[in-house]
Amino acid sequence: MTGARGKAPEGAKPTLAVVGATGAVGTVMLELLSTRRDVWGEIRLIASHRSAGRRLVVRGQETTVLPLTAEVFDGVDVAMFDVPDEVSAEWAEVAVAAGAVVVDNSGAFRMDPDVPLVVPEVNASVARKRPKGIIANPNCTTLSMIVAIGALHRAYVLESLVVASYQAASGAGQAGIDTLYDQIAKVAGHRELGTRAGDVRRIVDDDLGPFAAPLAMNVVPWVGSAGADGWTSEELKVRNESRKILGLPDLPVSATCVRVPVVTGHSLAVHARFKRPIELPKVYELLRDSSGVLLFDDPSHQEFPTPADVVGTDPTWVGRLRIALDDPQALDLFVCGDNLRKGAALNTAQIAEVVAEDFMAVATA
Amino acid sequence: MTGARGKAPEGAKPTLAVVGATGAVGTVMLELLSTRRDVWGEIRLIASHRSAGRRLVVRGQETTVLPLTAEVFDGVDVAMFDVPDEVSAEWAEVAVAAGAVVVDNSGAFRMDPDVPLVVPEVNASVARKRPKGIIANPNCTTLSMIVAIGALHRAYVLESLVVASYQAASGAGQAGIDTLYDQIAKVAGHRELGTRAGDVRRIVDDDLGPFAAPLAMNVVPWVGSAGADGWTSEELKVRNESRKILGLPDLPVSATCVRVPVVTGHSLAVHARFKRPIELPKVYELLRDSSGVLLFDDPSHQEFPTPADVVGTDPTWVGRLRIALDDPQALDLFVCGDNLRKGAALNTAQIAEVVAEDFMAVATA
Ligand SMILES: NC(=O)c1ccc[n+]([C@@H]2O[C@H](COP(=O)([O-])OP(=O)(O)OC[C@H]3O[C@@H](n4cnc5c(N)ncnc54)[C@H](OP(=O)(O)O)[C@@H]3O)[C@@H](O)[C@H]2O)c1
Ligand SMILES: NC(=O)c1ccc[n+]([C@@H]2O[C@H](COP(=O)([O-])OP(=O)(O)OC[C@H]3O[C@@H](n4cnc5c(N)ncnc54)[C@H](OP(=O)(O)O)[C@@H]3O)[C@@H](O)[C@H]2O)c1
Repeated sequence: MTGARGKAPEGAKPTLAVVGATGAVGTVMLELLSTRRDVWGEIRLIASHRSAGRRLVVRGQETTVLPLTAEVFDGVDVAMFDVPDEVSAEWAEVAVAAGAVVVDNSGAFRMDPDVPLVVPEVNASVARKRPKGIIANPNCTTLSMIVAIGALHRAYVLESLVVASYQAASGAGQAGIDTLYDQIAKVAGHRELGTRAGDVRRIVDDDLGPFAAPLAMNVVPWVGSAGADGWTSEELKVRNESRKILGLPDLPVSATCVRVPVVTGHSLAVHARFKRPIELPKVYELLRDSSGVLLFDDPSHQEFPTPADVVGTDPTWVGRLRIALDDPQALDLFVCGDNLRKGAALNTAQIAEVVAEDFMAVATA
Repeated sequence: MTGARGKAPEGAKPTLAVVGATGAVGTVMLELLSTRRDVWGEIRLIASHRSAGRRLVVRGQETTVLPLTAEVFDGVDVAMFDVPDEVSAEWAEVAVAAGAVVVDNSGAFRMDPDVPLVVPEVNASVARKRPKGIIANPNCTTLSMIVAIGALHRAYVLESLVVASYQAASGAGQAGIDTLYDQIAKVAGHRELGTRAGDVRRIVDDDLGPFAAPLAMNVVPWVGSAGADGWTSEELKVRNESRKILGLPDLPVSATCVRVPVVTGHSLAVHARFKRPIELPKVYELLRDSSGVLLFDDPSHQEFPTPADVVGTDPTWVGRLRIALDDPQALDLFVCGDNLRKGAALNTAQIAEVVAEDFMAVATA
């Protein structure tokens, strides 16, 4: 095992650094650290020089935000990185060199063969094989479905995936959230908008924020940057990360990623084909027993997941379960998860807790 | 040929009735009748007793709305029905009995084997085989993709479809439009909404309108009513109507239909598998040459269809073309169309014009 080197005095709780504490993911992380089982000793909050000196509350205590420097990792056992890719790429190894195990939320290391990509409900054990001292957290879109898909895969053996996403503004960070609120304020009250080509664009065009087109009263089939052959980076992440997490390197995956005017909560329409025929009652039983999954599938009582009902909660909500009418081995479903919780901060916290437990075991050994 | 019986004096233009002239589809129909090639003689506007006496403008002339009665069809050659299913079911045959050809926009007759289901760009010829004197217009979700899919099918032979929809509020008629505007006005300015489960619901819950959950700041994976085995009526329509229009009665189709907070403009993420391998340059050429299709696929110049850019236009916009990375016979694409135009009024107008031409040919023969 690399990292968690047990430097701390016997019985002491590990020291945690939260890098990116001021961002959309960081904000939810502070909330989780304040409400989950407290496995941490000192918690250091870190962001850019712009935020240094701000005071944020974690575990009920006001804490001063520190600027990101090499020294800030002195004595840190676990460092969560909730920052842009290029910041993680530069600084994760600095934290490792200082003796910390890094749990990285960015895209910088996810496909590195020497970095495990971990979803505790699906592949917890790989978190312990981390030759670089870095563990990667999957992308929020993949994470919003993979706990449910992993549970189904264990029973029926996944053969292919076709997914279409309905992704929230907060997937683009605090700037995405602010832009959506701004745009909704601008279009509200204009009861003629959305009826002529470009009328919404004319009202919000000066502030597209991180989006490639207006988001209020619209949907935008472009998330991330251009990848190869017309695919976006986000669509390729869904494919590559699903394969890595499930241990299915050749799994056929087609994803279309679309941004929708929702603040927080990613949804996905999934068409999953399996090697074995599917029986719906068994699927219900299986999903009811799966940790991290909430089965919510009784349309006759208006039970189907929507982001407005799911935001702020931990599980992956699963509904609209249907066996394909023309294919007894294919299942159609609609899943929703909070992209800032399970899609980011919660999964990172879960991974970090696994590391913290190992640390305590070593420290008290 | 049934209907278009050439009763009118030689050279006279056919008389048109628009039933449902006051609705969401009817309103767009009046606009189209005022701007398209004018093939009509008298145009009668008809709605419920509630609207009788209202004055609406068509072809620049104020016209009084008549209540729906049997007598209103006297001398009518073509009657468009843009009314709820049950109104069409009751009244279409009354219009036929009075000598009119009916073009029906409702779901009442679409799957009747004696009623052709027509998309002029795909299967114009079947409009002339109408033993009941009724021609059906497909559902707006099917129509928003089928012109593009039909063009691809002619070249590559369709083998299966997986689709996820992003459907606009106006698909639920004027009540849907009003509800979305109302909800957006209510949530606007609340910069904390969409961050706690149920917070949007609490603000709009007294007015869900025709939707099964809040639509502002949300997406709702439930459109239509409950069909069999967990499928919605809307999802079954996409499957059954696509099969009928394309003449592929066994085509495997899985659809997940989702309402999004867009006023007008349905979008679909489509994964289409064909019998022949696909070459992207040929697909571009084919779609560029297809009538009713607008190829809009250059993400490097921010060209991909979004409903805000498509609303109020006639064609089916096609973008995000990608060959599946794991399957050279599968194509992923994103299509957008105006659900009130090609998805409803425009397609009905096109069908009615085909009938009008036959009528003129008979009348002048
Ligand atoms: N949003 C999601 O749904 C989601 C889900 C999964 C993963 N992620 C990933 O998580 C990471 C953070 O995302 P976010 O949505 O929270 O972004 P965000 O709201 O933009 O926050 C970015 C954070 O990074 C900090 N930062 C930026 N540049 C820095 C620098 N040079 N040095 C130190 N700190 C710096 C910012 O600090 P200042 O406030 O000082 O600028 C802020 O705390 C990204 O890699 C993202 O891809 C996001
Ligand atoms: N919206 C779409 O995207 C779309 C697309 C394709 C097909 N369609 C279909 O087109 C039809 C009309 O849809 P819509 O969206 O326009 O609905 P809408 O906005 O609710 O309009 C309904 C129309 O039907 C009239 N009507 C209702 N009950 C009537 C009755 N008993 N007798 C006579 N007229 C009556 C209404 O007249 P009053 O104003 O007097 O009540 C109004 O003109 C529906 O079958 C719908 O499924 C809609």
